[in-house]
Amino acid sequence: MELKEISFFDKERLHKVLFERHTPIGRLFETTLLIAIIASIILVTLESVKGFSGRCALLFDLLEWTFTILFTIEYGLRLYCAHNPIRYATSFFGIIDLVSILPTYIAAFVVGAHTFLIIRVLRVFRVFRLFKLIKYMRAGTTITRALEASREKITVFLIFVLLMVTIIGSLMYMIEGGEDSGFTSIPRSIYWAIVTLTTVGYGDIAPSTPFGQFLAAAVMILGYAVLAVPTGIVSAEMVLENRKAASENTNCSRCGKEGHEENSRYCNRCGEPMVKMV
Amino acid sequence: MELKEISFFDKERLHKVLFERHTPIGRLFETTLLIAIIASIILVTLESVKGFSGRCALLFDLLEWTFTILFTIEYGLRLYCAHNPIRYATSFFGIIDLVSILPTYIAAFVVGAHTFLIIRVLRVFRVFRLFKLIKYMRAGTTITRALEASREKITVFLIFVLLMVTIIGSLMYMIEGGEDSGFTSIPRSIYWAIVTLTTVGYGDIAPSTPFGQFLAAAVMILGYAVLAVPTGIVSAEMVLENRKAASENTNCSRCGKEGHEENSRYCNRCGEPMVKMV
Amino acid sequence: MELKEISFFDKERLHKVLFERHTPIGRLFETTLLIAIIASIILVTLESVKGFSGRCALLFDLLEWTFTILFTIEYGLRLYCAHNPIRYATSFFGIIDLVSILPTYIAAFVVGAHTFLIIRVLRVFRVFRLFKLIKYMRAGTTITRALEASREKITVFLIFVLLMVTIIGSLMYMIEGGEDSGFTSIPRSIYWAIVTLTTVGYGDIAPSTPFGQFLAAAVMILGYAVLAVPTGIVSAEMVLENRKAASENTNCSRCGKEGHEENSRYCNRCGEPMVKMV
Amino acid sequence: MELKEISFFDKERLHKVLFERHTPIGRLFETTLLIAIIASIILVTLESVKGFSGRCALLFDLLEWTFTILFTIEYGLRLYCAHNPIRYATSFFGIIDLVSILPTYIAAFVVGAHTFLIIRVLRVFRVFRLFKLIKYMRAGTTITRALEASREKITVFLIFVLLMVTIIGSLMYMIEGGEDSGFTSIPRSIYWAIVTLTTVGYGDIAPSTPFGQFLAAAVMILGYAVLAVPTGIVSAEMVLENRKAASENTNCSRCGKEGHEENSRYCNRCGEPMVKMV
Repeated sequence: MELKEISFFDKERLHKVLFERHTPIGRLFETTLLIAIIASIILVTLESVKGFSGRCALLFDLLEWTFTILFTIEYGLRLYCAHNPIRYATSFFGIIDLVSILPTYIAAFVVGAHTFLIIRVLRVFRVFRLFKLIKYMRAGTTITRALEASREKITVFLIFVLLMVTIIGSLMYMIEGGEDSGFTSIPRSIYWAIVTLTTVGYGDIAPSTPFGQFLAAAVMILGYAVLAVPTGIVSAEMVLENRKAASENTNCSRCGKEGHEENSRYCNRCGEPMVKMV
Repeated sequence: MELKEISFFDKERLHKVLFERHTPIGRLFETTLLIAIIASIILVTLESVKGFSGRCALLFDLLEWTFTILFTIEYGLRLYCAHNPIRYATSFFGIIDLVSILPTYIAAFVVGAHTFLIIRVLRVFRVFRLFKLIKYMRAGTTITRALEASREKITVFLIFVLLMVTIIGSLMYMIEGGEDSGFTSIPRSIYWAIVTLTTVGYGDIAPSTPFGQFLAAAVMILGYAVLAVPTGIVSAEMVLENRKAASENTNCSRCGKEGHEENSRYCNRCGEPMVKMV
Repeated sequence: MELKEISFFDKERLHKVLFERHTPIGRLFETTLLIAIIASIILVTLESVKGFSGRCALLFDLLEWTFTILFTIEYGLRLYCAHNPIRYATSFFGIIDLVSILPTYIAAFVVGAHTFLIIRVLRVFRVFRLFKLIKYMRAGTTITRALEASREKITVFLIFVLLMVTIIGSLMYMIEGGEDSGFTSIPRSIYWAIVTLTTVGYGDIAPSTPFGQFLAAAVMILGYAVLAVPTGIVSAEMVLENRKAASENTNCSRCGKEGHEENSRYCNRCGEPMVKMV
Repeated sequence: MELKEISFFDKERLHKVLFERHTPIGRLFETTLLIAIIASIILVTLESVKGFSGRCALLFDLLEWTFTILFTIEYGLRLYCAHNPIRYATSFFGIIDLVSILPTYIAAFVVGAHTFLIIRVLRVFRVFRLFKLIKYMRAGTTITRALEASREKITVFLIFVLLMVTIIGSLMYMIEGGEDSGFTSIPRSIYWAIVTLTTVGYGDIAPSTPFGQFLAAAVMILGYAVLAVPTGIVSAEMVLENRKAASENTNCSRCGKEGHEENSRYCNRCGEPMVKMV
């Protein structure tokens, strides 16, 4: 009993609060941090709006420093109580935690130089605090598993799309290139091909000659079939994931016999009743 | 026989007409109301067109008051014959029924104040009479079941999309922000990222620098893979719903034995013929 | 032998040529007509292009009259040799055949009246010769079967979309309506909602206020999930159609026993070898 | 041992390096060529950008000639060591290899004529070096198999789409044609119909009359259901491909007995343990 009456600054206890989410105080800390991250990102976002940043500059600065100091304390504590501080500092989350606080400090020093562009970039960089949220996401969901399983297929598909848009863009540059219709270079034409094939269709560049419009129409109809491919890949993978999840219910929990019929009541090897999970 | 010759204003009988759809007069009432709702919504819609509202203002007013009085009578009767009037008045449909008639009355009183904006808002509010239609929709269809089953996955997906567009929008603001290309703030850039990733592509904001166009092209191609995810989720869920519906046909209607082969003719436990449903 | 040396104008023989496609001369006639229909549609299409219609007016007129006379002869012969001429004349294809030739004749008489609009409409009407092609399409393919099976679900879905765009359009009219941003009436706002939700995104009407853009972004992200529904419906139905086609291979061709395992070599009731079809 | 100390110019050995990828030197050669092809395409692409082509014309010319000479040597060697030179020269890859080098040589001679258009076309033609990459792609993937299996269905679907856009375009030309809203001819209206139905939506042509917008909205909502068809086709085919791949794991590797349950541990005919492949 007495053993637990240790200082709050005890490394082990702090470690539990900061790195483990099973304790009540750990969960409280986690929730506070989550709200602070989201509030800080909304702040960065609103700060970029001209109307706001003029009127409430002082409020924004105050809030920004509050969040920065909070994240600095978090970073300091994590460094202090990590079992291996260097390993933490060089880990993905260690770098993200550092990048989340650095821009504000740098901006404070750079202000003297009045380089507006750098300050703007630094300000926007704080948005990457979003990556701190990754910690709170559960891995291994059906979506990520299905995407991972179809990663190779999607890569092959994307390479194929890249080849296709290069050829389409080049053809379009040959047809419409000499005129003032926006197809001023092959990269721009490839950009148009991507805009068209993905059915985004800004309309900032559009073919004006009949032959160009004919080719564009062909590309769009081709895009129909092409668009179906990644959807088909992911759909099929999702169906597979669903079936795997269902087949896990067909394994006997006692003898491990797999492959029972989907609605079996008893294991057909050892007679154990099958538990139905929905 | 004589028992049925009761006053029309008998609460029980009215309740049957208004809240139950099994009686012929209840069905007639239902159909009339359905037509009145749809006609009233078309009226609100057309009234907002300048050409119409000028020429046929009187006709519109007349029709509007007819519908309002009809819905007022409906509301009054429902309140009168409900088993628990307060519970009805505070229920979802009670509030919708009230909101459907209030704007017309308020507008009639407010006219003195000549506040055009409020009248316009009040007029448009009558469109929410649409929600009265929800009563007539059958619940529990395959679509709603499949959407409900995939609700959690779609929520995770939408959060992921929100994080993605925040980062893409911020990057784009860093690249194109200083110029006059429409990326004037991070929220506007996020708006652009959503317009692009969902392949809507208005073209009101479009990147103008080569690097911005390169990033936009990458976002579009990314959008390809991303768009496949919700479709995959719903498709897989629909396949599952279809299979569940099919497997219900493999249960014996006499002894309840489940999991027969899909085209079984007799139950393999009790010999009952299996009824085939298509 | 002598019986076959009958006059070409024999009704029965003509009927075979015109209505049945099993005879060689019937197939030849069919192919000729198919080419004539497609050529005639291309003609109508090109005639509407200003550059062409000016230069080659005479050629166009000549070709047009050739096709019209050809289709007139076809119509006359069909009327002449049909077992029931009135039933043919009032059937879908009878009306299409008549509509395919009428515009040219009417236009020839109306020319005196110089009503340009009517002539243009009449000219375009000839495009409906396309419907003559329906005769040559095989029915009962997997696509039509899957679409038919999911017709009810798609109808429910479309009604739901209509309700949704009405509410979204009304909200948008309330938010952006007073300004000059294109949302001049509720029907126009509904048009915008449809353009956005279906991810077409012309950009002729686009929200300009921050709050309008926020709502638009929400609609687009909603459109993501909504777009997945019809795709999911058709995908699931296609998977079902594929499985049905596969299960047809699991029925014994001798005793008719259904529901064998997918790779069975012999019928498990009568011992008949199972023929494998791919 | 001594037999291997043959001249590098030995036809057989060269053949192995150039046409077979199993030897280490063959793989090295392959990698070098792959990089050269991609670098050469990036060069062609950048050369079309005005800013670049002006400043680094000399560098571009130098690199272009390096790549051309490299590909010329490759073509010469392939011709020299092919077992049947004429068959190689007239094969798909033989023609591609020739087309990859010809434009540079022709452009060098044509320069005197100063025909800019021809030079531009020749330059762009070098992009078709991309087709040389096809050699490095593995055939027979799930994607190509699924696309091939659904080729017939997709063709039927595309014909159906073509008929549909012709009719929609003609109707739109009838409605909006007389005005200055961009629907100047039927082909242009068909182009608009394709842009709309595929949800690309440039906005360069958009309906301006209320009735035209009503038809456009109907087309978009129709496009919803239509878009679902190719996705459904490919998805269903992918599900089938996945199942086929899974069922290959249910065949016994010893006695060849097919159709075991999906998680079988032993062959139920010969007792051979089943190898599980994931």
